[in-house]
Amino acid sequence: MGTRPITFLSDYGYADEFAGVCRAVIARIAPDARIIDLTHGIPRHDVRRGAAALARTLPFTPPGVHLAVVDPGVGTERRPMAVRVADDDRILVGPDNGLLSQAISSLGGAVEAADLSESQFALQSVSETFHGRDLFAPVAARLALGASIVEAGEAIGPETVFRVATPEPTVEPGRVVAHVADVDGFGNVALDAAGDDLRRAGTGAARATVEVAGFDHGATNGRSFGDAPEGGLLLYVDSSDRVALAVNRGSAAADLGLEPGDEVVLRLDV
Amino acid sequence: MGTRPITFLSDYGYADEFAGVCRAVIARIAPDARIIDLTHGIPRHDVRRGAAALARTLPFTPPGVHLAVVDPGVGTERRPMAVRVADDDRILVGPDNGLLSQAISSLGGAVEAADLSESQFALQSVSETFHGRDLFAPVAARLALGASIVEAGEAIGPETVFRVATPEPTVEPGRVVAHVADVDGFGNVALDAAGDDLRRAGTGAARATVEVAGFDHGATNGRSFGDAPEGGLLLYVDSSDRVALAVNRGSAAADLGLEPGDEVVLRLDV
Amino acid sequence: MGTRPITFLSDYGYADEFAGVCRAVIARIAPDARIIDLTHGIPRHDVRRGAAALARTLPFTPPGVHLAVVDPGVGTERRPMAVRVADDDRILVGPDNGLLSQAISSLGGAVEAADLSESQFALQSVSETFHGRDLFAPVAARLALGASIVEAGEAIGPETVFRVATPEPTVEPGRVVAHVADVDGFGNVALDAAGDDLRRAGTGAARATVEVAGFDHGATNGRSFGDAPEGGLLLYVDSSDRVALAVNRGSAAADLGLEPGDEVVLRLDV
Repeated sequence: MGTRPITFLSDYGYADEFAGVCRAVIARIAPDARIIDLTHGIPRHDVRRGAAALARTLPFTPPGVHLAVVDPGVGTERRPMAVRVADDDRILVGPDNGLLSQAISSLGGAVEAADLSESQFALQSVSETFHGRDLFAPVAARLALGASIVEAGEAIGPETVFRVATPEPTVEPGRVVAHVADVDGFGNVALDAAGDDLRRAGTGAARATVEVAGFDHGATNGRSFGDAPEGGLLLYVDSSDRVALAVNRGSAAADLGLEPGDEVVLRLDV
Repeated sequence: MGTRPITFLSDYGYADEFAGVCRAVIARIAPDARIIDLTHGIPRHDVRRGAAALARTLPFTPPGVHLAVVDPGVGTERRPMAVRVADDDRILVGPDNGLLSQAISSLGGAVEAADLSESQFALQSVSETFHGRDLFAPVAARLALGASIVEAGEAIGPETVFRVATPEPTVEPGRVVAHVADVDGFGNVALDAAGDDLRRAGTGAARATVEVAGFDHGATNGRSFGDAPEGGLLLYVDSSDRVALAVNRGSAAADLGLEPGDEVVLRLDV
Repeated sequence: MGTRPITFLSDYGYADEFAGVCRAVIARIAPDARIIDLTHGIPRHDVRRGAAALARTLPFTPPGVHLAVVDPGVGTERRPMAVRVADDDRILVGPDNGLLSQAISSLGGAVEAADLSESQFALQSVSETFHGRDLFAPVAARLALGASIVEAGEAIGPETVFRVATPEPTVEPGRVVAHVADVDGFGNVALDAAGDDLRRAGTGAARATVEVAGFDHGATNGRSFGDAPEGGLLLYVDSSDRVALAVNRGSAAADLGLEPGDEVVLRLDV
């Protein structure tokens, strides 16, 4: 087996060389490893957004090593870890702060895990503030070359991996109470309800009412941006099968004042 | 012949994982395909700017598959397409909304084209809102592996490819009436006139007058930014042989209030 | 020996295709060259910031060709150059404006250098304003393929390479006078003093005083962001062994009003 590909997601942004130096560390250890940058634009320290983006993206990537770093607690007691999941022997590498948990669940669950705190694969000198470069990147490179989880760190119970509790949407005929899961760069708002939830609540009518913070907004029940008039609100199921809100050639997040975690009530005619 | 390289240009930006997941889809289908990101910073939905950047950039890229996605009409009736051009058997993939037309013209014209609406190479489930991931990326990957245009979709007449009508510059002795074709991130303004137009109008003098919205601005007639004093306006021919305006260590677009499509009158002493 | 990897750092930003077209030029000449983007987010024309980022990053990259372009004087008399350094036969390519000098020093010094003004490896037509694409990228690609410095340009004395004079920190018991070397995207402030300077001045106490523009700020003497309370100032040694200031989950640069070059006085209890 050749070197496995490495996907890379972080909140390092593009202004600094943080993501670049991690790529360099990987290339130095594993010169043939393909690195696929998923994004480095996760809002700084936003573990929740990072977790959602990772879970949404990994089903489309080649199986391999999946490096993810959104790490507000770097240098504190949170564990660095590597986790092998059931699907395709994929290995996830990152901090044990909930960032990986949603992806782990959606990829068949953790099969094997290791605490990387004392990894033999870390760079010789590990800084307190840049584990991406000094610990996570070199470990990911060695795993891509074929090292096993237990070579990378101390085995831990897969069931001890940190999980984030999230509210659940509620679905009843004509009404869905959901929460903002994600806002993309275009201002499209993804909710934590799935396409099936909407179908169960009833979607026969051409219009729906979107209630945010006590205010009602009329929306077109449609499938693509063009189904709403320019500047009009669209209720649809997005490309990740999530119920979502968009404004045709505008920003639903800005128009409705929505941020991740906010509650949204959808009222549908049935 | 090995796998062809794939260039990739879009308006997906860097905040989200949109470009990243397209890269992942390509890597999954064509593990050895080299992906060359041209830019994902085209302003959202700005087909005109995307078309200009693509046409300007492709002559410098290796021949291969050229994926471009600026697609305000995704999910509506606009056709997704693949087009083979005369030069180097390059294949362009993207929406048929004018984004590809300028590049097609400058690469010898379309030789063969296909409508990808029902492509067998699309992912199993094609969303209404993310054709980059579900349709364009997998088709580009298969074309890079050697598939033909007609395997990718239904053959269409190359002459049916959508073309954008653009105003033409007018050139007479001492005077050029041109339009803003592009503004780059430094505020440099490229016009739709070529270096030859300027030479035909006459460029003997060291100074020129730039008229914008009825106001006159004096400019240095030069070749590099340093030819104008700091903060001074420079009239020059840019690295793509377009007549252009810059402000030394400043922004010509901001100083003159120029945006793509705006008319600019150049008066030259002859 | 196969093709050497090429690292790439610039101030081209992400809005335009400038970095992308350079990648394309390299891929066309050296199809197998691995390109490692370090960052293209150096603030426009900020040679000092670019030089610091390059020097900080190269020790972590694989040895190879190191392309760097922050070039406010493009098209003027500044020399384009290629420099081979003592460590690992690394070759640096970029403008001779000080951008490369800090990295050259930290990699054992220049061993061989060439002026690229008349390089045979340049593209056929070299623009006055885009040497990255027309000169630096093709030269870097040829060097990655194995060309020598003297094939790339006219040999010049390595001692003639331009060097930037920088102020030095002063260290005495209980007191360090340093200068801001760099501010990262998180607002963390790196000073030009090293970890050893701080140890020589004395770091026994848990608190220190940071004086900026005549105002005193109390700081926690710690090792990781979490050592300071949320919103609190932290004095620490960063991942590049520089004395640094951070605000836990905030921006030290914004809170203290610091920019590169500013003086900072640290008073330590000994």
